[in-house]
Amino acid sequence: MIYADNAATTKLSEAALCTMTDLLREVWGNPSSLYTHGQEAKEVLEKAREEIAAVIGASPREITFTSGGSEADNQAIRSAAERGRIKGKKHIISTAFEHHAVLHTLEKLRKEGYEITLLDVHENGLVTPEEVGAAIREDTCLVTIMTANNEIGTIQPIREIGAVCRARGVLFHTDAVQAVGHIPLNVADDNIDLLSASAHKFHGPKGVGFLYARKGILLSNLIEGGAQERGKRAGTENVPGIGAMATALKEANANMAQNAAYLTKLRDRLIAGLKEIPHSALNGDEKRRLPGNVNFCFEGIEGESLLLLLDDKGIQASSGSACTSGSLDPSHVLLAIGRVHDVAHGSLRLSLGEDLSEEDIDYIIRSVKEVVTYLRGFSPIWRDLMSGKKEFIL
Amino acid sequence: MIYADNAATTKLSEAALCTMTDLLREVWGNPSSLYTHGQEAKEVLEKAREEIAAVIGASPREITFTSGGSEADNQAIRSAAERGRIKGKKHIISTAFEHHAVLHTLEKLRKEGYEITLLDVHENGLVTPEEVGAAIREDTCLVTIMTANNEIGTIQPIREIGAVCRARGVLFHTDAVQAVGHIPLNVADDNIDLLSASAHKFHGPKGVGFLYARKGILLSNLIEGGAQERGKRAGTENVPGIGAMATALKEANANMAQNAAYLTKLRDRLIAGLKEIPHSALNGDEKRRLPGNVNFCFEGIEGESLLLLLDDKGIQASSGSACTSGSLDPSHVLLAIGRVHDVAHGSLRLSLGEDLSEEDIDYIIRSVKEVVTYLRGFSPIWRDLMSGKKEFIL
Repeated sequence: MIYADNAATTKLSEAALCTMTDLLREVWGNPSSLYTHGQEAKEVLEKAREEIAAVIGASPREITFTSGGSEADNQAIRSAAERGRIKGKKHIISTAFEHHAVLHTLEKLRKEGYEITLLDVHENGLVTPEEVGAAIREDTCLVTIMTANNEIGTIQPIREIGAVCRARGVLFHTDAVQAVGHIPLNVADDNIDLLSASAHKFHGPKGVGFLYARKGILLSNLIEGGAQERGKRAGTENVPGIGAMATALKEANANMAQNAAYLTKLRDRLIAGLKEIPHSALNGDEKRRLPGNVNFCFEGIEGESLLLLLDDKGIQASSGSACTSGSLDPSHVLLAIGRVHDVAHGSLRLSLGEDLSEEDIDYIIRSVKEVVTYLRGFSPIWRDLMSGKKEFIL
Repeated sequence: MIYADNAATTKLSEAALCTMTDLLREVWGNPSSLYTHGQEAKEVLEKAREEIAAVIGASPREITFTSGGSEADNQAIRSAAERGRIKGKKHIISTAFEHHAVLHTLEKLRKEGYEITLLDVHENGLVTPEEVGAAIREDTCLVTIMTANNEIGTIQPIREIGAVCRARGVLFHTDAVQAVGHIPLNVADDNIDLLSASAHKFHGPKGVGFLYARKGILLSNLIEGGAQERGKRAGTENVPGIGAMATALKEANANMAQNAAYLTKLRDRLIAGLKEIPHSALNGDEKRRLPGNVNFCFEGIEGESLLLLLDDKGIQASSGSACTSGSLDPSHVLLAIGRVHDVAHGSLRLSLGEDLSEEDIDYIIRSVKEVVTYLRGFSPIWRDLMSGKKEFIL
């Protein structure tokens, strides 16, 4: 099996699995309990908090554990919106191609009376700090822009965006779910006020993530109840998951430079290979993208068939976000970078992992070429394109 | 070690650990992905949903997976409140001794304009269906009453309460976090519309739970984002945790009658032993309580010292809810059943597990007797009580 969908989820690393199994067996106490076994769990929890904070340049008290990236996004945005409301500031800036955990939360806020500005991400999938600055108003309470896009992998100039926000006194949140553990991030250097992350995107377990909130930013609870997480996130802490997340993040961080260099090499080889397919196009900026992300559109075919035939060849990939795979609509990310519906439907995301070899990449290239040719062979759209009834876009 | 705090959390069962480890290793795909490995994860997810639904007499579509009991409580209450608001019904009935996941959510709703009636739970820790019926008004949208209390273990007549609610057309939610896997529950027979549960209370993993919502009850999202859980709970599903929860619940259900009989025997032995301590009292009804729950107040001592000295003797217990252990306030549950502050401070909860023997129980009895006598030896309150300066309450 060639697993090329690491943006959807990653395999738990051996080290993280080991931490998790140990904790599940040995440290199953409730960290809120006063006796020895509870306090052991508390120590694991606080050690994990320190380790995670250290990786992103935060202090431990700035880390709140959540059930994942979506929860962290929701809580970050809700908190900033609530702080804004109190000050009479109800304008939020974001982009049109954020993850739905951000966009749907913003949509809900819009219905509650907030005004939302979604910035254009252009053809290359990037926003500029200048555009962010130009959109900031007196009543802006939050800018929320993802560090790296989950479909096309483009990496935003978040440090510069953060600087603009800070200079204007506006909170800056970044959904860094695809970035944490993959590219260098430092909340201090990068001027980040709020940051969301998810363990299963960096070889940690599912069902656990964290929210960084700079000291002094009061969080609003999504989940009310017990006094866990300084009263900001109720529920018995998932100690084994949190411990395993810390292990995975430390490991990802330690190997980051090496992994990124290797993945970039694989990525660029894959991009070069797929570009040979006529009437195809890479989505998003060619260089300013996650080391492992490749996302193409192929004219005249339909993404789902492509995936199923690749699956038959042992290649596991996706057309875009796993979170919206049930939907028949084309990707909102691809529409946001200007792809028309027909073209956006023929998309393929290959998100690579360190376990792949150059031979695997060449096998992917050969397989995609075969499958695209095969599918175009009986595509009515392709026939129309070839006969000149329709004009090629790519 | 004698672990007697199973109401705070339980040890993961061997079978659940085995399921979890297998899934962490083998079935780490994203269930939303279309390819084989994703669909395998989807199958595990849906099998777990069927198994869990079967245990409580629900249909699979009525089960929504959450990160735990607190999230399930929050979502259940928020959903019912939202449905009520739309119909102009903003009155909610609950009790004064619910878990904080319920009470704090209700407090927030009160600030948003809802009216909350908290029923008295009397000295025995029970409400009556008649009292619920009498409190229901034209504008009542929800009754939320826990199945079994997390501190004193009293079991409410939820079937009868549910019947009253149904007859009056009011939604009935029950926080069954302490009950699921321990006492028989059937959402159809028990007239339950919404039910919350948490895996780590029945020997499943932490960080996972579920919300049952009867067909036709529209849930409101706490977490917005992807289309997971029929669009009602965003975030990549914690498949290993969910699979392990199903294993644990099936196991708990299969052994329920046997476990309950054994725990009841241990419980009653422990209650009889602790009653021998002068100026002590059992909290909550003696029979209508969870099989493993024992909760006492000892006059003239302070709960925290009691716990620490028991810990020295290898006994792990609590003074009440783990979720509020950081607080210096006496338990709101004990205050709700009429204990005065001084007495409520000297509380001890022992929540037993199947791994304990009768010898363990006798050791607990001896140890508690010793420790209580020791602590009273230098307690100023005890001195005042003995000298007649203060009057005994118990």
